[in-house]
Amino acid sequence: MPAPRVLILNGPNLNLLGTREPEIYGRLTLPALEEACRAKGQALGMTVECRQSNHEGELVTWIQEARDVQDGLVINAGAYTHTSVALLDALRAADLPVIEVHLSNIFQREAFRHHSYISEAANGVICGLGKIGYFLALQALAEILESELET
Amino acid sequence: MPAPRVLILNGPNLNLLGTREPEIYGRLTLPALEEACRAKGQALGMTVECRQSNHEGELVTWIQEARDVQDGLVINAGAYTHTSVALLDALRAADLPVIEVHLSNIFQREAFRHHSYISEAANGVICGLGKIGYFLALQALAEILESELET
Amino acid sequence: MPAPRVLILNGPNLNLLGTREPEIYGRLTLPALEEACRAKGQALGMTVECRQSNHEGELVTWIQEARDVQDGLVINAGAYTHTSVALLDALRAADLPVIEVHLSNIFQREAFRHHSYISEAANGVICGLGKIGYFLALQALAEILESELET
Amino acid sequence: MPAPRVLILNGPNLNLLGTREPEIYGRLTLPALEEACRAKGQALGMTVECRQSNHEGELVTWIQEARDVQDGLVINAGAYTHTSVALLDALRAADLPVIEVHLSNIFQREAFRHHSYISEAANGVICGLGKIGYFLALQALAEILESELET
Amino acid sequence: MPAPRVLILNGPNLNLLGTREPEIYGRLTLPALEEACRAKGQALGMTVECRQSNHEGELVTWIQEARDVQDGLVINAGAYTHTSVALLDALRAADLPVIEVHLSNIFQREAFRHHSYISEAANGVICGLGKIGYFLALQALAEILESELET
Amino acid sequence: MPAPRVLILNGPNLNLLGTREPEIYGRLTLPALEEACRAKGQALGMTVECRQSNHEGELVTWIQEARDVQDGLVINAGAYTHTSVALLDALRAADLPVIEVHLSNIFQREAFRHHSYISEAANGVICGLGKIGYFLALQALAEILESELET
Amino acid sequence: MPAPRVLILNGPNLNLLGTREPEIYGRLTLPALEEACRAKGQALGMTVECRQSNHEGELVTWIQEARDVQDGLVINAGAYTHTSVALLDALRAADLPVIEVHLSNIFQREAFRHHSYISEAANGVICGLGKIGYFLALQALAEILESELET
Amino acid sequence: MPAPRVLILNGPNLNLLGTREPEIYGRLTLPALEEACRAKGQALGMTVECRQSNHEGELVTWIQEARDVQDGLVINAGAYTHTSVALLDALRAADLPVIEVHLSNIFQREAFRHHSYISEAANGVICGLGKIGYFLALQALAEILESELET
Amino acid sequence: MPAPRVLILNGPNLNLLGTREPEIYGRLTLPALEEACRAKGQALGMTVECRQSNHEGELVTWIQEARDVQDGLVINAGAYTHTSVALLDALRAADLPVIEVHLSNIFQREAFRHHSYISEAANGVICGLGKIGYFLALQALAEILESELET
Amino acid sequence: MPAPRVLILNGPNLNLLGTREPEIYGRLTLPALEEACRAKGQALGMTVECRQSNHEGELVTWIQEARDVQDGLVINAGAYTHTSVALLDALRAADLPVIEVHLSNIFQREAFRHHSYISEAANGVICGLGKIGYFLALQALAEILESELET
Amino acid sequence: MPAPRVLILNGPNLNLLGTREPEIYGRLTLPALEEACRAKGQALGMTVECRQSNHEGELVTWIQEARDVQDGLVINAGAYTHTSVALLDALRAADLPVIEVHLSNIFQREAFRHHSYISEAANGVICGLGKIGYFLALQALAEILESELET
Amino acid sequence: MPAPRVLILNGPNLNLLGTREPEIYGRLTLPALEEACRAKGQALGMTVECRQSNHEGELVTWIQEARDVQDGLVINAGAYTHTSVALLDALRAADLPVIEVHLSNIFQREAFRHHSYISEAANGVICGLGKIGYFLALQALAEILESELET
Repeated sequence: MPAPRVLILNGPNLNLLGTREPEIYGRLTLPALEEACRAKGQALGMTVECRQSNHEGELVTWIQEARDVQDGLVINAGAYTHTSVALLDALRAADLPVIEVHLSNIFQREAFRHHSYISEAANGVICGLGKIGYFLALQALAEILESELET
Repeated sequence: MPAPRVLILNGPNLNLLGTREPEIYGRLTLPALEEACRAKGQALGMTVECRQSNHEGELVTWIQEARDVQDGLVINAGAYTHTSVALLDALRAADLPVIEVHLSNIFQREAFRHHSYISEAANGVICGLGKIGYFLALQALAEILESELET
Repeated sequence: MPAPRVLILNGPNLNLLGTREPEIYGRLTLPALEEACRAKGQALGMTVECRQSNHEGELVTWIQEARDVQDGLVINAGAYTHTSVALLDALRAADLPVIEVHLSNIFQREAFRHHSYISEAANGVICGLGKIGYFLALQALAEILESELET
Repeated sequence: MPAPRVLILNGPNLNLLGTREPEIYGRLTLPALEEACRAKGQALGMTVECRQSNHEGELVTWIQEARDVQDGLVINAGAYTHTSVALLDALRAADLPVIEVHLSNIFQREAFRHHSYISEAANGVICGLGKIGYFLALQALAEILESELET
Repeated sequence: MPAPRVLILNGPNLNLLGTREPEIYGRLTLPALEEACRAKGQALGMTVECRQSNHEGELVTWIQEARDVQDGLVINAGAYTHTSVALLDALRAADLPVIEVHLSNIFQREAFRHHSYISEAANGVICGLGKIGYFLALQALAEILESELET
Repeated sequence: MPAPRVLILNGPNLNLLGTREPEIYGRLTLPALEEACRAKGQALGMTVECRQSNHEGELVTWIQEARDVQDGLVINAGAYTHTSVALLDALRAADLPVIEVHLSNIFQREAFRHHSYISEAANGVICGLGKIGYFLALQALAEILESELET
Repeated sequence: MPAPRVLILNGPNLNLLGTREPEIYGRLTLPALEEACRAKGQALGMTVECRQSNHEGELVTWIQEARDVQDGLVINAGAYTHTSVALLDALRAADLPVIEVHLSNIFQREAFRHHSYISEAANGVICGLGKIGYFLALQALAEILESELET
Repeated sequence: MPAPRVLILNGPNLNLLGTREPEIYGRLTLPALEEACRAKGQALGMTVECRQSNHEGELVTWIQEARDVQDGLVINAGAYTHTSVALLDALRAADLPVIEVHLSNIFQREAFRHHSYISEAANGVICGLGKIGYFLALQALAEILESELET
Repeated sequence: MPAPRVLILNGPNLNLLGTREPEIYGRLTLPALEEACRAKGQALGMTVECRQSNHEGELVTWIQEARDVQDGLVINAGAYTHTSVALLDALRAADLPVIEVHLSNIFQREAFRHHSYISEAANGVICGLGKIGYFLALQALAEILESELET
Repeated sequence: MPAPRVLILNGPNLNLLGTREPEIYGRLTLPALEEACRAKGQALGMTVECRQSNHEGELVTWIQEARDVQDGLVINAGAYTHTSVALLDALRAADLPVIEVHLSNIFQREAFRHHSYISEAANGVICGLGKIGYFLALQALAEILESELET
Repeated sequence: MPAPRVLILNGPNLNLLGTREPEIYGRLTLPALEEACRAKGQALGMTVECRQSNHEGELVTWIQEARDVQDGLVINAGAYTHTSVALLDALRAADLPVIEVHLSNIFQREAFRHHSYISEAANGVICGLGKIGYFLALQALAEILESELET
Repeated sequence: MPAPRVLILNGPNLNLLGTREPEIYGRLTLPALEEACRAKGQALGMTVECRQSNHEGELVTWIQEARDVQDGLVINAGAYTHTSVALLDALRAADLPVIEVHLSNIFQREAFRHHSYISEAANGVICGLGKIGYFLALQALAEILESELET
C-alpha cells in the first residue's frame, strides 16, 4: 500500500512567514516550515506536498486537483478564511479529509476573523499553536486516514 | 445584420460540473453544457461563447473585454455571486444586458447564499432550474436584444 | 396521456397590469398576458389556466385545490411574496412543481422586497424579465414535467 | 526537574461520553478517555490529572486551584463554553497555558455553539477531532511548557 | 406492565412558589403542587417523582440519571430556560419524552424570556396556565407513552 | 346556568389536516378533529363550536363576533400566528380567555415560526402535542372559566 | 366643477370603534365617526364616502377602484399598516393624494407598530389625535386638492 | 376666561424656510409662516407665540419656561427630533399638550429620520403636510384644550 | 430596635481578590475586604455578614434565605452579573433593598460586560471604585433603611 | 496644602429638580442639592463648586476649563449622557478623576438610557441612589485624591 | 475677480489642540494651525477665515451664514461628526463645496467614530493626516472652485 | 540621498477610468492619470511607479514586494476595499506609510461601500476628490516621508 499523500496549502501573505512580526509568528520562514512538515509527514509515513498562493482562484484550482491525487488536506487559508465562499465550495467538492489550521488564535483578534467559511468543510480546526499546529494537523490526518482504512 | 454575440461566464468550481454531487447538479459536464448552450444559441440566431474561471480577477477582465465585442452576458458567478463587489462594478461598466443564472435554488441553501451582489447589475435572475436555466437565459437575451433592435 | 395542466396564479395588484407604470411593467394587460400564456402553454402541449386575486386567503385556497387537478404551478405572488407564510405552507402542501416569477428584478428594489417566503417552496425563481418570465416559467415546467415522466 | 503537571477538565454531560450518540462521539467512555490521556501524558513526560463536573462553579474552583499546582490546562467546557463568563475569568486568573478542546466541530453545529467565551483565555483551540483532540492538546502543552523552560 | 415513571423537575426559585407574588403565581406552595402532581400522576396510572434545584449542574445530573430510571420528563427550568445550553444537551442525551412547562406566559414578559434553549429538546411546550400546566403536561406524557407502547 | 361556550378557530391550511405530511401531523382529518373536540367539550360540560378559514380577515371577524356569544377561544392561527397583527388586535378586543395551540413544536422549525404575535393576547400557549393540544386547551379553558365563576 | 370626492378607508377591527377600550378610543362608534366625516366633508365642499373592512384584499381592491372615481384618500389601515406591502403597492398605483391616519400615537405603543409600510405612499401622516385626526386629514386633502387645481 | 396660550417652537435650520429648496418646502419664509400661525391662532381664540433656535439647549430652556406660561406646544424640532433625548425629557417635564409637526414626510427620507425621540412625549404627530401641518396642529390643540376644560 | 442586618454577597472568582492582577484590583484580599466591610457596617450601626461563592445556585439560595433574616443586600455577582437570570429572579423575590457593586468600571471592559441582568432588581449601582464601592454601598443601604423607617 | 477643588456639573433639565415628578426625584431643588453638596464637600475638606447647563457646548467648555482649576469632577450629564460624544472627548482631555452620577437607575428605564458615552471616561459610576449618589461621589473623589497624593 | 473666500470650521474640543495628547495631535495649537491655514490660503489665492465652537447650534448658524459670504467650507466637526443631523442639514442648505477633515484616522478608533453624518453633504473627506489634512483640503477647494469658474 | 520611491496601486476596474461614466469619473484615462501622478511625484522630488490589477492576489503580491523597494504607498483598491482582508494583511506586513484614495465619496454610495478593510492599515484616507485625491495623497506622503527623515 502506497504512503498516503497530503497537500498542505497556505494562503495569502503566508509566504511572508518569518519575515514579519516575528514576535507573533516566530522566525521560521515558510520554506523552513514546509521542510519541517515534509519531515514530520515522512515520520508519520505520509508524503507531504506544500504550496502557497496569494490568489484565491489558484487555491481553488489546487484543491480541485487534489481530489484525485491526494488523500488529505491541511489548509491555512489566511485572510481568505474569512471571505471566501469559493474555497468552501472547492473543499466540499474535493471530498477529502481536511484540517483547518491557523497560526494565531483567531478568536483573540478582530471580530471579522472569528468567522471561518471553510470550517463548514473541515473535519477539524486547530488554531493558536503556531507551527506546532501544522504538525498536529498532520498527525490528525494520519489517524483519520488510518481509521478510514480500517473501516 | 450579424448574429448577436453572447458570452456565457461560469465562475469558480463550475468546471467540476457533472463530476461532483451529480444527484444535485446532474451528470452533464461543463464542456457538454457549453456545447448545448452554443447549439441553443445557434437555434436562436446568436453566436455563443463560453468561458470558465476560478479567478475573480479573470472574470472581471473578461466582463470588461466583453463590452465591445459582445451583445449580452449570461453569468453564473458561483461563489463569487455572494462576495464580489468587483464583479458588480465590472458588470455595471460593461453596460450590456445581463442574465444571472444559478443551477440550484440559492434561496433554499445557507443564508450567506441568499444575497447576490451582482443582481444589482442584472436584467434578470434565473435560479433553481439546472441546465435549463442557461437555455432560458439565452432565450431571454434573444428577446431583449430583439426588442432593443426594434426600439 | 392527457396534456399536463398548469395553473398560473397572480397576486395582489397584478390585475392592474398594463394600466399602471407602463414604462416599468409594459403596456400588456393581465387578460392579454394570460391569453399569451395560454397560447404559449398550448404550444408546449400544456393546458394553462390563469387566476388572479387580491386576497391572500383566496390564493391559499386555489393552491390547495390545485393539488389534485393541476400538474404544476407558476406563481407571481406580488406583495404577498414578502409577507405571506400562509402561501409558503400552501405551496409545500400542494406538492407540485412550482416556478416563482416576478416581473421586475426584486433585488433592485426596496430591501423588504429582497426576501421571498415562497422561494423556499419553489423549484426555481425567474425575475426581472417581464412577461417573458412567464413564458420561460412555462417552458421550465414543461421540461420538469417531462423529466418526471421519464423517471 | 519534576514532570510538568497538566489538568484535563471536562464540563457538563461529558461524563456521558461513549453512552450517547456513539455514531458521533464514538464508543470510548470518559474513564477510558481519561486513562488514555494519562498514558499519553506519561509518554510525553507529563503527569496528567482528569476531572469532570456538571457544575459551572465547581469547574471555576478547580481552575482556581490549578494555578499553584498545575503547569497547564486542557479544557473541554462542553455547553459552558458558550455561556460562561465565570470560566473565562477563572482561566485568565489562573495564568497557565490553556488548550481548549471540543470533540465535535462546533462550527458545523447550531449558531449559538460558534462562539466560545473561553477562547479569549486559551493559547490554542482544537476541535472536531474527537478523542485525538485531547492527545494533540497534550502534545501542544508539552511543546509550550518546554519552550517556556528554554526561555 | 409496571406503571410508567415520570420525573418532574423544577428549576431555580421555584422552591419559593406560593410565597412570592401570589397574585401572579397563586398561593400553592411547591410541596403542595408536587403532592397534587403525584396524585394526578396516580390517577393517570403513572408514578410521579418531583425534584427542585437552584443549581444548573444538579438539574443536569438529575436529567442524566433519569435516562435509565424514568419514562418521561416534565421540566420547568425557570430562569435556566433562557440561559442553559447544558440543560439542552442533557435533555437531548436523555432521549426521553419531555414536556416543557412555564407557570406564566413567558411571551408576555421581558424579551430575554421569549427564547428557550430547551424547547429544542422538548416534545411539547405548555405555558401561561399556572399549576394546571403541570397536570396537562402529565396528561400529555401519559398519551405519548401510551401511543409509544402501541407502536 | 347554561354550559360555557367555546369557539375553536383554525387558520390557513389547517383544512388540509390528515391529508398532508401525515407522518408529522397524523392521519386525523380536520372534521374528525373538530368532532373529537366537540365530544371532549361535551365531556367537560362545554358547548364547542369549530371554524376554519384561510382568510385572515374572516378569522378577525369571527373573533370579533365571539365576544358576545362565546365564553372562551382556542386558536391555532397557523401561518398567521407569525404575521398577523390584526389577529392580535381582534383577540385583545374580544376580551375572552384564549388558549393558543400549535400542532407542531414551532420552536423546532424555521426561525420565523419562533415568534407569535398572538401570544401577547393569549392566557396560555400549548404546542408540539398534536391533536392532544386541543383537548388540553379545552381542559385549561374549563378550569379558567370555572375559577372565574368562583371569583 | 363638481365637488371633489374623497374615500375614507378603515382597516381591521376599526368596526369595533366605540365598543372596545372606550377610555382610549372614546365612545364614538364607527357609523357615528363616518357620519361626522361626511358632514365635515360637506362643510369643506367635498363628497365623502366611507368603508371599512377586515380583509386586506378587500382594502386593496377598494383602493384600486378609487383611482378613477375618487380625488383623494384618507386611510387608517389599522393593523395592516404594519404588515401589508400589498396596501403600499395599491396606494402607489392609485396615484391619488393620500393622508394616513391613526387614532392613537403609534410611536408610544409596541415597537412593531412604529413602522408603517404605507407611509411610503402617503402625502402626510396624522396620528394620536383620535377622531379629530380624520377631520384634519379631510382639511389637508381639501387644501391639497385646491392647490392642485390652482396649478 | 383668558385665551389659551400656545407656543410654537421651530428647531435648527427652520430659520432658512422659504430660502432653501423651495420646490420642497415652498416659498413661505419662517416669519411669514409664524405670522400666519398667529393669525390662525387668533381665529381659533388662542394667543400664539413663535420662537426658533439652532441651539438644542435653548429649545430645552424654552420648553421648561413654557410650563407655567403656556397652555400647549407645537414643536417642529427639525434635526433634533432624531438625536435629542434632552428635548424628550424637557417635554415630559413640561406636562403640557404637545403636537409634533414636520413639514416633510419624514418616513420617506433617510432611515435615521424615521425615528423621533420626542414622539414619546407628544399627544399627536402631523407630518408631510407643509405649512398646513402647523395650522392643523393649532386646531388639534384648540380641541384638546377645550375638551380639557369640559372635563 | 435591633441593628439592621446586611448581607454582602461576592460571586465567582472574587475569592481570588488581592491575589490576581493587583495592579487592577489592589492588594486587599477578600477576607480583609470583608473585615473592613464589617467594621464599616458597625460604624454605620449595621450588622454585616459576608459570603462568597463560585456557584450560581448557591448565590440564588443565599439570596432566597436573606429575605427573612436580612434588611438589605450588597451584591457583586462577578461574571454572573452578565449571564444569570436566576440571580435576577432571586433578587426580585427577596424584596429587599439591593445595591449592585463592581470593583472595576464594567463599561470600560468587553462589550459583554456592559449589560447586567441584576441591575433590573437593584436600587442602585456603584462601579469602578474598587473597595470603596462596598463602603459607599453600605452607606447607601444605611440611608435607604433609615428613610424606610421614617416612612 | 490647599483644599482639593471639585466641580459638580449637572446637565439638561436637572435645573427642574424638585419641581417635576417629586415622587421619583424627591422634593429637593437643585439649589438645595448644590448647597448640601458644598456642605458635604466642606466636611470632606474639599471646595465644591456647582454648575448646571442645558447646553451641551457649555458643559464641554466648563469641563475644558476645569482642567487647570479643579482637582476632580462629579457629573450628571442628564440626557446628554446617552447622546454626547463631545462630553466624552472633553472629559478625556480634562485628565481629572471623574465620577458619573445618575439620580435614577438608568438600567431600569428606556433601552436608549442604558448606554452612557461618558462612562468611558469616568473612574466610577453611581446610579439609582438619588441625592445620596452625589454625596457618595464626593466621598469617592476624596478617597481617590487622597490616594493620589500618597503615591 | 475677488479672491475666493473659504471658511474653516472647527468643532468641539478642537480649541484644545496642541495642549492635549500632543503625541497624537502634535504640538501645534489651534491659533497656530489657523494662522498656517490663512497663510496657505493666501498662497492659493484664497481668503481664509477660521472659527471654532463647542456649540452645535453655533456651528449650524455659522454654516447658514456662510452661504452668502463664502465660496467654500472646510469642516472638522469633531465629536459632532458622529451625532449631529443638524450640521448635515445646515451643510446641505449652504449649497457650497465642502471638504470634511479629521486629524486622526477615525476608522482606527471606536466604532461610533466610523460613521459621519456630514459625509453625506461633503464633496470630499480627508482624514488621518493631521494638520496637513487642512492644507490639502484648501488645495482641493481651490481646484474645485477653479473648475467651477471654468464651467 | 536618493529620491523617495512611491508605488501607486489601482485595483479592479480602475483600468476602465475615463471610458465609463465620464460624468462621474471624468474623462481622464488611467494611463493619463498615472502620467500626471508621475509628474506630480517628480515635482515633489519623488519617484512614482504605477500599477493596476483586477486580481486581488496580484495586488497582495505587489504590496509584499513594495516593502523593500518602496518608501510609501498610495492605494485605490476599488471594489476590493470593501471585501479584502488579504489586502489589509499585506498592507500591515508592508510596514510602509499608506494613503488610501477613492475617486468618489464612498460614503454617499451603497451601504456596503461605507466600510473599508484597508483603512485599518492606512495613515490617511482621501475620498471624493477625483484625480486631485491622488495628487494630495502624494503630497501627504511627501510630508510624512520628510518628517520621518527629520526624526
